[in-house]
Amino acid sequence: MKSKLIRLVNMPSGMPQIDDFLLEEEELQSITDGQLLLKPLFISVDPYLRVAMSGGHPPALNVGDIIISRGIAAVVTSAHKDFKTGDLVMGYMEWRDLLLRDGADLVVLEDKNMPLSSYLSVLGTTGLSAYFALNEIGKPKKGETIVVSGAAGAVGSIAGQIGKLFGCKVIGIVGSDDKADFIKNELRFDAAINYKTTADIGAVLDKLCPEGIDVYFDNVGGNISDAVISKMNDYGRIVVCGTIADYNDEKGAVGPRLLPLVVYKKLLIQGFLISDYKERFHEGRAQLKQWLIDGSLNYRETIVKGFEQLPAAFIGLFNGKNEGKMLVEM
Amino acid sequence: MKSKLIRLVNMPSGMPQIDDFLLEEEELQSITDGQLLLKPLFISVDPYLRVAMSGGHPPALNVGDIIISRGIAAVVTSAHKDFKTGDLVMGYMEWRDLLLRDGADLVVLEDKNMPLSSYLSVLGTTGLSAYFALNEIGKPKKGETIVVSGAAGAVGSIAGQIGKLFGCKVIGIVGSDDKADFIKNELRFDAAINYKTTADIGAVLDKLCPEGIDVYFDNVGGNISDAVISKMNDYGRIVVCGTIADYNDEKGAVGPRLLPLVVYKKLLIQGFLISDYKERFHEGRAQLKQWLIDGSLNYRETIVKGFEQLPAAFIGLFNGKNEGKMLVEM
Repeated sequence: MKSKLIRLVNMPSGMPQIDDFLLEEEELQSITDGQLLLKPLFISVDPYLRVAMSGGHPPALNVGDIIISRGIAAVVTSAHKDFKTGDLVMGYMEWRDLLLRDGADLVVLEDKNMPLSSYLSVLGTTGLSAYFALNEIGKPKKGETIVVSGAAGAVGSIAGQIGKLFGCKVIGIVGSDDKADFIKNELRFDAAINYKTTADIGAVLDKLCPEGIDVYFDNVGGNISDAVISKMNDYGRIVVCGTIADYNDEKGAVGPRLLPLVVYKKLLIQGFLISDYKERFHEGRAQLKQWLIDGSLNYRETIVKGFEQLPAAFIGLFNGKNEGKMLVEM
Repeated sequence: MKSKLIRLVNMPSGMPQIDDFLLEEEELQSITDGQLLLKPLFISVDPYLRVAMSGGHPPALNVGDIIISRGIAAVVTSAHKDFKTGDLVMGYMEWRDLLLRDGADLVVLEDKNMPLSSYLSVLGTTGLSAYFALNEIGKPKKGETIVVSGAAGAVGSIAGQIGKLFGCKVIGIVGSDDKADFIKNELRFDAAINYKTTADIGAVLDKLCPEGIDVYFDNVGGNISDAVISKMNDYGRIVVCGTIADYNDEKGAVGPRLLPLVVYKKLLIQGFLISDYKERFHEGRAQLKQWLIDGSLNYRETIVKGFEQLPAAFIGLFNGKNEGKMLVEM
């Protein structure tokens, strides 16, 4: 039995290229005791994988490695006492269309009330990132103003809506008019800024939030963040979820100095790893699901079909190809 | 009766100059009910005053204002029921050699066991800044590595010693060999770096702390902080107490981007205002005093004599003229 797999064959310098990935085929071993034969149904592609390729996010990805990301798979054959054929399991898995695994770090998906893909999007680590990072780092209070960059993306789209549920004013920054319409009309953000058609983001922010910004939920970094951070109020909180604008920069990128602003405005700037909140995923997922069921939370997914499309879907993240979570369906 | 006073007559652009200050003389009004006639004994000069001149630290200082900073004064005459002649009081006061005040925000110095000046240095807001910011933001754990910039200064010299008391390895960055000797020999820092004679601070840090840096207690900002921050460990905490290197920069200074590092290393960067810990000053002062009494904490003061020297002493802060707290004695 053969398995297709995708390997990292060049360490991307700057923007990842299709040639950095190689599709191979391999004969699978026979299943042995304690193993599972899995058939992935959805595989998640995420910006953090670019960080993993620079060693900044576990598991680090090196040249020659088969890429690993989160996925949902069906158990085709089980030789493991905790899993049975037909189970759906979720966890980190290699980019293979068929794989042998032990059961470590795999969770059986018990709750099947929601669409399968949602467990990798709004109910997965991206939705949970929005929930925990906004709550625990951003600590928004009713009536405060939140700006979200990458606001139509997997994390930003959820973070902004949670901000609205907390009674905040929420402004989203996005990269197209379609995305601006999406976050205003479907996600009920108070306002949207298309950074690609806005010459002076700072001036627009001055108009949209003359009261200043209390929480900045940042997914992009770069010039957009410079503009937002200069408008922070005293004791503002900057949740640094990602800096996708910077991931593909060569070393040595410069920008306005932040530390003087940190002093002048008593700012908090913090990064996080969603797995640090692992013990509380249950709590976060229950709240997000409740909001989905009662209609107070919307989400969108960009689903690309075909195992071979994984590298292209991943690269698409850096070209703004997705609204909501980008997933690949086998 | 006449009072000398010092007024800000130009908003400094860049480094403050002697000409930005004007010494005047004024006839004092007669004391009225509820007032105190105070004779300052020590007045504190602090880098944050430069920030106040840019509106970034309360109370903001504008052109024409008499400078205000913390001081200790003797009550010459009291027409206020809560104060009596001969009391020593501490609080924010105008730069005058004799002044009329109501009693608001003045505290009678009850504890006179320690040298008077120490209540404006190690037992004052600079010592308390070291104590609370290191504890509450830096959260050092035994065995961790702390780097302190401005390590011979009023706050840094105390922060580094507290780090040692917590069982950390502490490296200080200073601006002269004398200061390096001071922090190593008198303050028991593990190592000192004289940034003025060190071409590559990063390389020296690599040698001194190959295990990386867990807490950076920053008083200076600028290039020194760039070098330190690039060596932070995952989940490192950066306490931004001050960025004296940046205070006199014209707007538009640039440096390496920090947000990617915040993401990659899950860093925390936080500023603070010591008055936010006001309710806990008693606790902090008691601990600092205990350490002074049992000999585990040393401190130094740079005391300039003469009311007229206030502007020069203030400017001296930006030229590294002080070891420990800079104070002016009347």
